[in-house]
Amino acid sequence: MKGLKGALVFAQSGGPTSVINASAAGVFIEGLDSEMITEVYGAAHGIRGILNEEFFDMKKEDRKELELLKNTPSSALGSVRYKLKDADVDDTDYKRLLEVFKKYDVRYFFYNGGNDSMDTCNKISKYMAKSGYEMNVIGVPKTIDNDLYGTDHCPGFASAAKYIATTIMEINLDAKVYDTGMICIIEAMGRNAGWLTASAALANYKGYGADLIYLPETDFDVDKFVEDVKAVCAKNNNKCIVCVSEGIHDKNGTLIGELLGKAGARDSFGHAQLGGVAANLANIVKEKTGIKTRAIELSLMQRCAAHCASKTDVEETFEAGRQAVKAAVRGETDKMVCYKRKEGKEYVCEYELLPLELAANTEKTVPAEWITNNGTGISEEFIKYALPLIQGEANAPKEDGLPRFAKLKKVPVAKR
Amino acid sequence: MKGLKGALVFAQSGGPTSVINASAAGVFIEGLDSEMITEVYGAAHGIRGILNEEFFDMKKEDRKELELLKNTPSSALGSVRYKLKDADVDDTDYKRLLEVFKKYDVRYFFYNGGNDSMDTCNKISKYMAKSGYEMNVIGVPKTIDNDLYGTDHCPGFASAAKYIATTIMEINLDAKVYDTGMICIIEAMGRNAGWLTASAALANYKGYGADLIYLPETDFDVDKFVEDVKAVCAKNNNKCIVCVSEGIHDKNGTLIGELLGKAGARDSFGHAQLGGVAANLANIVKEKTGIKTRAIELSLMQRCAAHCASKTDVEETFEAGRQAVKAAVRGETDKMVCYKRKEGKEYVCEYELLPLELAANTEKTVPAEWITNNGTGISEEFIKYALPLIQGEANAPKEDGLPRFAKLKKVPVAKR
Repeated sequence: MKGLKGALVFAQSGGPTSVINASAAGVFIEGLDSEMITEVYGAAHGIRGILNEEFFDMKKEDRKELELLKNTPSSALGSVRYKLKDADVDDTDYKRLLEVFKKYDVRYFFYNGGNDSMDTCNKISKYMAKSGYEMNVIGVPKTIDNDLYGTDHCPGFASAAKYIATTIMEINLDAKVYDTGMICIIEAMGRNAGWLTASAALANYKGYGADLIYLPETDFDVDKFVEDVKAVCAKNNNKCIVCVSEGIHDKNGTLIGELLGKAGARDSFGHAQLGGVAANLANIVKEKTGIKTRAIELSLMQRCAAHCASKTDVEETFEAGRQAVKAAVRGETDKMVCYKRKEGKEYVCEYELLPLELAANTEKTVPAEWITNNGTGISEEFIKYALPLIQGEANAPKEDGLPRFAKLKKVPVAKR
Repeated sequence: MKGLKGALVFAQSGGPTSVINASAAGVFIEGLDSEMITEVYGAAHGIRGILNEEFFDMKKEDRKELELLKNTPSSALGSVRYKLKDADVDDTDYKRLLEVFKKYDVRYFFYNGGNDSMDTCNKISKYMAKSGYEMNVIGVPKTIDNDLYGTDHCPGFASAAKYIATTIMEINLDAKVYDTGMICIIEAMGRNAGWLTASAALANYKGYGADLIYLPETDFDVDKFVEDVKAVCAKNNNKCIVCVSEGIHDKNGTLIGELLGKAGARDSFGHAQLGGVAANLANIVKEKTGIKTRAIELSLMQRCAAHCASKTDVEETFEAGRQAVKAAVRGETDKMVCYKRKEGKEYVCEYELLPLELAANTEKTVPAEWITNNGTGISEEFIKYALPLIQGEANAPKEDGLPRFAKLKKVPVAKR
């Protein structure tokens, strides 16, 4: 059913990416240009901004600043982690959402996020349909974790992968600069899916990578790990570069970070030490090998390094936002925008739609057959998959030699 | 005295930078083009490569790859930390160096490094002169720490500063994305000199910086620090971004990292916990405020992120190498290449020479009057000083969307 004329609301949810605002730009610019859309609102801090009627009037923004959103990391509208209850159990939030949507005549709703956000989006879509309120709802995917079901890859993943591979290449050279031993353990994000950690293999492909790569898709054994490192050191002049996922766990599913960190690690003030997996593993190999070690957490940088973003990712992420609006206006609802890789030699990304209930709450992990070398390597298949995604430099605009981020006015919409 | 015809040796020492090889490129290219220079050798791992007669024949390298050195981080010849004894105490190494220099007819020696390396360079220069061996010796400065005496700034500093400022800008947006509290503590390198940590102020200048900046030039008090953070949180919705130097110390000179980390911090295996200053401070503020905290170490990335290098820095660092060779060929010796900022509105860098004994072993720290706000801020003077240095993008060549580093053949010179 073709959408009604009415207002558009867009909101961002969950952990940001370095390109997340490219989708915001796509939604806003397409929305502003659409005859069916009367108002373009951005909600502050995801679903909470809708519950609290905190909307920004995107018509008041300069088009140039909206364009700059493509290269501005971290959710420009603010994010939230807010899980809606099932409407059958408690429909308070849903009633309130319906009330707000009616009050502002919202006929188009777009939610930008990962698995949990697609679940939220799905629940809202279903409730509004059941209530007989005509509103087209489209989810716009976003996650560096790359773990959303039904899409070839996720907006934001490629830029994080490009940052990780670039940084590991640089660290590889730096860590090997002396003729003395050095074990360097690099920690990437990813609780359950190892896509980001696997990106270290792109650095390997260029010849400056990690000798050992451990994903959360396999069980991790600390003793085996120490032996793996020793074996690399033995044949490599005591040099070894490791990339581990924050989510590595033992065969019982216990996180290695918790396993190693829990038992009474305290500083001189008696505070519990919170060191990450890499720091804990570095301590162990240092003791077991006597070789100098260094732990490096890629921390927030891997998800906010817009200065190192993939042009391909920026463009696709922007287009995902545009496609969401186009789909809603032509009558689609209850769907998530997906990437489909066109068959053929050359990489081409096509945009499709997937029912929200399929996208929500299903995690896509790295295929077991792509994990090689007894759980320490990544196959050529991954390189074929990931390499096209990291092509091109975003060339984010600079001012004074530093990033020029979008400056939004964020003019509040008067509460009704 | 005009230099003799003879071979050139260039070696790299100490911690690398993201642009260190730009000086190597400058020395090699100028050396290859000079009529006075018969052979162009790169020594492996600094002074040790000379002692061991491990030379690479740079005449065998492709010119294109030498050009690519400008954008290849970490010492391409390998580095070393090797402190020469005083010749009066033990002249074994000096005799050996003289023997090697004679054997390969080395008449031009260039050493690339920081304070200690300039000391080494100075000692070698003095010994060779005393021995009556005609060899022109020029030091090429290099250090992200920016702490060399007698030069306006040091090759490598600006790129590290640009990386730090860019990264803090990105982290600033990311860390503030939720409407809940977040204290983010970022650790930069610099044991005694706070230039790198002060670079956070460049991010402040752009409006996305650190609320509190602590340099090693002032004494650090943990209790005052907690109060500083609380004060920022109170007026800033429980959000606070801090940048600290690894070298911050209490009024007795004890490093805060040691002070907080020493007393029995152990993991479950009984290994000592080695967490950095930021991690330790994050634990404390988390306990004292109850606000979520995150510690980020910029670690090796700040000195190897060639993908974010300053074009100005790359060009100056290359020119420093060229100027060293030009000076030596025209007869200069026992000097270090220095940068001088030309007076006037527009930034212009001029190249001068400074006696090595002045450059060696003197540390230049951030002027006390540039440290403001009761030891938590950086003045406008620093911005005026540092901003011109980070201008321009190095635009390091890419291949497959990833860095294309120089691939040297490193053809060994036959031992004589």
